[in-house]
Order: sequence, then C-alpha cells, then structure tokens
Amino acid sequence: MADFDTFKSLQKKQKAYSYVLSLAGWDSNTEAPKECFPFRSEMLSIISGEHFSLMISDAYVNEVNDLMANRDDLTETQRKEIEKAKKNLDKIIKIPKSEYVEYSKLRTMAQKVWEEAREEDNFDKFKPYLEKLIAFQKKMVAYRSDTDNPYNVLLDDFEEGMDMEKYDAFFNTIKTELVPFVKEILKKKDEPETFIHDKYPKDDQKKFVEYLLDVFHFNKDRGLLKESVHPFTWNTHSKDVRLTVRYLENYVFSSIFAAIHELGHALYEQQIDEVFDMTNLKSGASMGIHESQSRFYENIVGRSKPFWEAHYSKLKSMFPKQLKTIDLETFYRGINKVDETFIRVEADELTYPLHILLRYEIERAIFNDNISVEELPALWNEKVKKYLNLEVDKDSNGVLQDVHWSGGMFGYFPTYALGSAYAAQIYYTMKEELDLETLLRENKVDKVNQWLKDKIHCFGSSLKPEEIIQKVTNEPFNPKYYIRYLKEKYTDIYLS
Amino acid sequence: MADFDTFKSLQKKQKAYSYVLSLAGWDSNTEAPKECFPFRSEMLSIISGEHFSLMISDAYVNEVNDLMANRDDLTETQRKEIEKAKKNLDKIIKIPKSEYVEYSKLRTMAQKVWEEAREEDNFDKFKPYLEKLIAFQKKMVAYRSDTDNPYNVLLDDFEEGMDMEKYDAFFNTIKTELVPFVKEILKKKDEPETFIHDKYPKDDQKKFVEYLLDVFHFNKDRGLLKESVHPFTWNTHSKDVRLTVRYLENYVFSSIFAAIHELGHALYEQQIDEVFDMTNLKSGASMGIHESQSRFYENIVGRSKPFWEAHYSKLKSMFPKQLKTIDLETFYRGINKVDETFIRVEADELTYPLHILLRYEIERAIFNDNISVEELPALWNEKVKKYLNLEVDKDSNGVLQDVHWSGGMFGYFPTYALGSAYAAQIYYTMKEELDLETLLRENKVDKVNQWLKDKIHCFGSSLKPEEIIQKVTNEPFNPKYYIRYLKEKYTDIYLS
Repeated sequence: MADFDTFKSLQKKQKAYSYVLSLAGWDSNTEAPKECFPFRSEMLSIISGEHFSLMISDAYVNEVNDLMANRDDLTETQRKEIEKAKKNLDKIIKIPKSEYVEYSKLRTMAQKVWEEAREEDNFDKFKPYLEKLIAFQKKMVAYRSDTDNPYNVLLDDFEEGMDMEKYDAFFNTIKTELVPFVKEILKKKDEPETFIHDKYPKDDQKKFVEYLLDVFHFNKDRGLLKESVHPFTWNTHSKDVRLTVRYLENYVFSSIFAAIHELGHALYEQQIDEVFDMTNLKSGASMGIHESQSRFYENIVGRSKPFWEAHYSKLKSMFPKQLKTIDLETFYRGINKVDETFIRVEADELTYPLHILLRYEIERAIFNDNISVEELPALWNEKVKKYLNLEVDKDSNGVLQDVHWSGGMFGYFPTYALGSAYAAQIYYTMKEELDLETLLRENKVDKVNQWLKDKIHCFGSSLKPEEIIQKVTNEPFNPKYYIRYLKEKYTDIYLS
Repeated sequence: MADFDTFKSLQKKQKAYSYVLSLAGWDSNTEAPKECFPFRSEMLSIISGEHFSLMISDAYVNEVNDLMANRDDLTETQRKEIEKAKKNLDKIIKIPKSEYVEYSKLRTMAQKVWEEAREEDNFDKFKPYLEKLIAFQKKMVAYRSDTDNPYNVLLDDFEEGMDMEKYDAFFNTIKTELVPFVKEILKKKDEPETFIHDKYPKDDQKKFVEYLLDVFHFNKDRGLLKESVHPFTWNTHSKDVRLTVRYLENYVFSSIFAAIHELGHALYEQQIDEVFDMTNLKSGASMGIHESQSRFYENIVGRSKPFWEAHYSKLKSMFPKQLKTIDLETFYRGINKVDETFIRVEADELTYPLHILLRYEIERAIFNDNISVEELPALWNEKVKKYLNLEVDKDSNGVLQDVHWSGGMFGYFPTYALGSAYAAQIYYTMKEELDLETLLRENKVDKVNQWLKDKIHCFGSSLKPEEIIQKVTNEPFNPKYYIRYLKEKYTDIYLS
C-alpha cells in the first residue's frame, strides 16, 4: 500500500537531480566558457540519465498509480500533487525510452541546424529536420492518446484546459476585431522618433535596470539580475529567482522593457507561497498565466503613462543628452509606437497577437490538416500579407525566425497571445479594486504586487489556469477584455 | 576479473556527480542569493549522498582493489590512475560512515562559529569546536594508519611525499637564515607610500585586471573572470577554469596581485594536457606545486621590475591622478614593501614564510606533543613576538585569523611556504634556459607559460611533486634557492 511520505521522498530525490541540472543550465546560459560544452554534455547526460531512470522507476510509478487510485484519502494539496505527478508521468511513460532518446538527439541537432539555416536564410536546410520533428511529435501524441485531434494534446501540454475549440474562438475574435483595427491605426502611425535609437551607454542602462528592480520591489536576497544573449527568468524555488537582460547600446528600450517583462515572471515566482517549495506545485500555474504576469507588468504597467509620470524624470536625469528635448507625451507615444514588422519578438503590443494568430493557424494546419513542410514558407508569407500587409522578403524574416519548432515545441505559441488576453481581463478586475493609475503615479508598485500575490501568485500551480481566471475575475476567460484594452489604449494614442 | 573500462565507467559516473556539485559550489561562492541556502543544502545533500555511495560502493571498491593487485598489466597512465584512486579510497573507506557524516556536520557548524568568534574576538567561543575538530582528526588518522606520528599522515594528505622530517629541515633553514635577515631588513624599511592606499575606482581596476588577463594569455574561451568576497580559482577540467578577484577601492594592489596569483593557478589548470580531462590526474600535482605556480606568477613575475617596465605606463595611463608623481623605481619599492604584520594574507613576500613557520610549529605541537587548545593563543603570540617582533593585541589578529582549522584542515599551511620555495628553485632553472627579464620587459609572458607548460603543467597530477622538482631542476627540493632568491631581491631593494 502506497503512502504519501514514500512518494514525497522519491520525488525529493528526483527534485535534487533536476535542481543541479537547472543550476548547470543557468551557468550554460549566462557565463559558461564556450569550450566547456563537450565535457559538460558528457557529464550532464549521466545526471539526466539518472534523473530519467528515477522518473520512470517502478517504485515511483507504482507509488503514483496507487496514490492516484486512492486519492480520495488525501488532503486537497496532496491530491493535487499526485494528479500533477500522474499527468507528468503519463507524458513520458508511454513513450519507448529508445525513441525518447532519439527524439532528444534530434532536437539538439535540429536546433543547431535551425540556427545555421536562419543565418544562411536557407529553409531547405532546416526542412528535413522540421519534417522529422513533426513526424516524431505526431508519433508521440499517438503513443499518449488515441485522439483524432493531435493538436489538442499539444495545446493542453502548454496550457492545461485549452483546446482548439477555445483557441479558435479566441483567435476568431482577434481576426474579426483586431485585424481591421490595426489596419486603421497603421494609417495614422507616427514617423519614427530618433530618441528611440539614440546611443545609451551600457553601464547607465544597467544602472537604470537596477533602479527598476527596486521600483518593482524585486527581492535581491531571493534572486539576482545578470546579462545573457536572450533575456529569461530562471528559478528553482521561491527563494532563488533570477532574471537576465541584454543591453543594446542603440536600443535602450529593449533592455528596459525586457527587464520589466522578466520582472513580471520573477515577481510571480518570488511571491509563490513557500509551502509549495518542496512540491511539484512550486512554479507558476501555466505558460499562459505566467505570460499574463510578464505582459501585465511590461505593457499594462510599464508602457502606461502614469508609470512614467513617476519615473521619466529619473530616466531623463540619467540620459540628459538623449532625452533633453523629449517631453513625457512624446516619450509615451514613442514607447507605444505601432508598426508592421516581420519579427515577432520585435513587435509592438498591438500587432503582437497577429504574429501569434498566424502561427496558431499554421500549427493547426500542420497537425490536423497534415499540410506538408514544403508548403510552410508560402503559407507563412500569405498570412503575413493578409494580417500585417507586408511582403516577406526572406525566410529568415518569415518561417525561419522562431526557435520553438526546432526544439519540438508545437502548441506553445498560442499561450503568448492568451497570456496578454488574460492580463487584460485581470486588469479590468484590478481596476475595480485598486486605483491603479494613482498607485503607479505614486510609485507604489508594491500594492500591485500584493494584489497579484493574494489573487494569483501565492497559489503556485495548485490552481489550474481556468480556475485562476474564474476566481480572480468572477467569469471564465473572455477575449473581449483584451480587445477592449487594446482599442481603448491605441484609440487614445492614435485616433483621438 | 576487473577490467579497466569498467573502472573508468564507474569513475565517470562519480565524476558527473562531483561535476554538478562543483558547479553548484561555484554558484554558491559567486552569486547565489542568500536566502536560497536552506533549500540548496537539502538538495545538494541528496546528490552528495549519492556521490558518496558510489565512491564506496562494493562494485567500485572491488574494481579498484582488483586492478591495484594486477597493476603490472596496465599502461603507465592507467597504473597511476589506479594508484591515485586507491589512495583516495583508503582515505574514506576505513572511516565509519556515521562518523564521516558527524564530522561533516561539525565542520559546517565550526566554520560558522569561527566566523562569529573572529568577529567578536572571542577565542573561548571557538575553543570547544577546535577541540572537537582536533579530536576527530586524531581519530580519523588512527582509523587510517597505526602511525605514531599522526601529523605525518596529514602532511602527506596535502603534499604527497612530504613529512615532518623534510618540513623540519625546510623550516629550520627558514628560521636560521631568514629570521635574522628579515630583522635586518625591517630596520631599513621605508615610510609607507601614500599612492598604495589612494582611491582607485573599481571599474578602472576591473579594466586593468582584464588587461592583465590578456598580458598573461589567459584563454577566455576556456574560462572567465568574476568577482567574489575571497579570490579563488575554480576548475572542472582544462577547458573550464575560472578565477575570481575582489576589488577594494582603497587598495588597488590587492586586486592586481590577487589576480596575478589566481592567474598562476588558472594557467596551470588550462595548460594541463586534455588527455587527462576524463581521468583523476586532470588537476594540478599537489597543493605545493599549485602554490609554486601562483606565487611564481604573483611574486617572481608580478612583483619584478622588468614586468612593470612593460606595464607601468599602462597602469599610469589608467590612473593618472593617483600615480602622476610616482616613478617606476618608487612604484617598484612600493609594491615590494616589507613590514611586520599580524595577518598572514596581508603579509609581504619576505615575511610571509615566517607566518607559515609559526603555524607549522603549532600544528606539530598539537598533533605530536598533544598540547591543549587552551594553550594555543599564548603559544601563537609568543611565536609572533619571536619571529616578527610584534605584540599580538587580540586573538582576531592572532590565533583566530585563519579559516583553515575551522574546516578541519590541519597540515595545509606548510604547503604555502613550500610552494614559494619550489617557485624559487624552478626560477633558477628557468633563468638558465630563458632570458626571463628580457621576456618580461618585452611583454612575452607566453614564452614563460610555454616553458612551464612543457616542464610542469602539461603533466597534470601524473607526476608526484618530488618527481616534478627533480625533473625540472635536476635535483631534489632544496630550500637554499628560496633563501637565495629572497636575499638577492631584498638586499637589492633595501641594503644596496
């Protein structure tokens, strides 16, 4: 007969392995010298192998299955832990180990080839790998489920509870409501402001980002800020949450808004109740909810006028030469400038969901309509023309731009737009309870943090995404808030 | 029947565990946020426990013993690997696991208590821990060996091949030759130069240390420079070697010479032949040989006049205000100033070995004459009076100053003086083959690196310390070179 303590002790051992692997990953992504990697991958593959063996060991599998069968005898949190453990187990246990290993190797290779293909602007180079990745994903889904809708399985992997029906409704709203609105806005777009791409010395950018950490009440005893090529947030538990930023001398707003975005992820993780530290509920609820927090802080707070009413004088004092002639209004319009762009990660807040829309439609076609990889570049370019009115000039500006598919991550993209939409829905509830504008104007982000902590963060992943949205906003997810938020904000800037 | 491949594969698995533990250690000592440690120690204790179990597993022990019995059938390198494995095994296998665990806990506690005791200048607080540490060490030695000279066992742990007889001879030479010479020099000592403790901005210090990395041909694709509270060098194999420095605004020479010292350790590790990467011979030959390299670079190269003939103008250009009126000669005397000091780590090159001499005599008395911990402060102070002519004012300037004993490291100190003496002996051989002064004056440290690589570094620990000294200098270790070097250098500065 299984008991919960045995499960916890088996799980704790697995956690120790993922903990050291995670530390190694942090090192690899921030400072490890480039020649260390062959030795490192030999060493880490041994630790990963041990970790995998523990995750699929009979002792552990039996324990999880027994406890799952008797979950009515458990406390609520224990039951959630077991359900999550069971779900994670089912994702790997039905896949033959040899195929899992082969798939891991394929991803490692594919990622390298994708980098080269993008560099060389050569889709044909990446094509065979992408074909194999898709074939593998389809096969893996078939092992796990006998669904006739494989994309649904992948969507649920990245956002529990979401499926094509719900996403179709969401993206239809975007298509019907947002696409025409964006076209209207783009007719009115401003000339680019030169202050945006002026030169801002790196050391001063760093100092401003350090200042932002304090503004947002990031706890430095429980985390740190560092540099890396791609900004990211990393965490092992609530008391070790780290974020990275990249500093571009000719684009200070890249580091500022990446920092605020990552701070959103980081605050979420730091504010999770420590009772979850030693459980599998210790991290954020889902990709979508996580992204809702990063986008809330980045866009709804960080690109708002009240926020800069509090902090623009500080920024100006640090960059007097660059910002001398720029008043707050011009600055505010500058950081909210709308434009058609090829590249998702450079897109503004308003056009961003259109980039996601086209990826969603393409992924759906790949998995459920079985379109061939051959057709992807043309399909991509057709959709960019349709939604953004741009002619894609080369595949590195099109179908080759994102890393996700090379890592086998299909079904991930939609959570980006979903997160922004969650953020808007949460925002309208928050506004009923907090005077957000005044709080931001008075530099009281801690009050905003506290509200989000109590309503969302403290629960870790002990609540499912849909439960969180329902609990916080008193209704199910509804994309109308997202459309409303974007229309209000950009009408005010461009059409009023 | 054992075979070498099985041994290698068991060993490789152990290496993977020590590799991730080592990465975690790097993180802990350089940037981990302070509140992460309780969770971290729980996680790492699981990995350490697994590591320890592998190291004493029957499979591994049997393999090592079998191969050791049949070592005549192995290649020379294989034989050395097995001998080293056997030696390491014998250090732990005879100690009951429960006592090993208890001892580890004691050390963790003792280190914390020592920090507080030093802070509060309260030897009585540390006393009971020091007593227990010594008692434990004596007991551990008794498990491992039936010697009637326990200190010999500890000396050999830190420097294979060294024992009390050899160290007595070495330190007697220091006592008879150096102690009177130091007294003579100290009569002539200069007034302190104010440029030494002028203010040097941290960012500029960093830039100069970066410059030094290039001067010394540190390979940045195989390592990195970072900050930490105590400077140290860290490495996992020849392609990942990292050093840290601390920057004190009012003491630029602390960071400069700490950097050159750590560069000595780091170059050694980077220049080890990569064939040893996957063996237990992958690191430097011993504490003493390692210290010989760090002290060679720090003192014989870094504090020489020819070196600064090449680099003083660079330093001056970076700190024009601080060094405007300081000519090379004054600078050279300033960085080689001799003075009586309480604290070992702040001591100059000439008085440094006297600090080690007194520690050696005290450790010998602890382990072989069984003097009590009660007597240590008085004994310490008496020796400081005798060798350095100083009255110790408080225990934090005396017996409480070093971290080593709180970590159970007895027998370690002597390797510091030994390393300096090795360095001098190596130096006189090098001078016969290289025109060192000219090379330094012409900024060709790479030629010096190459010489040390070919003669010492490339071998890793496949040669024992005494083999290295014999091979490089064509005679056994002889302290006369150390005395000669110090007398030549400081006679030139102070008595000529």
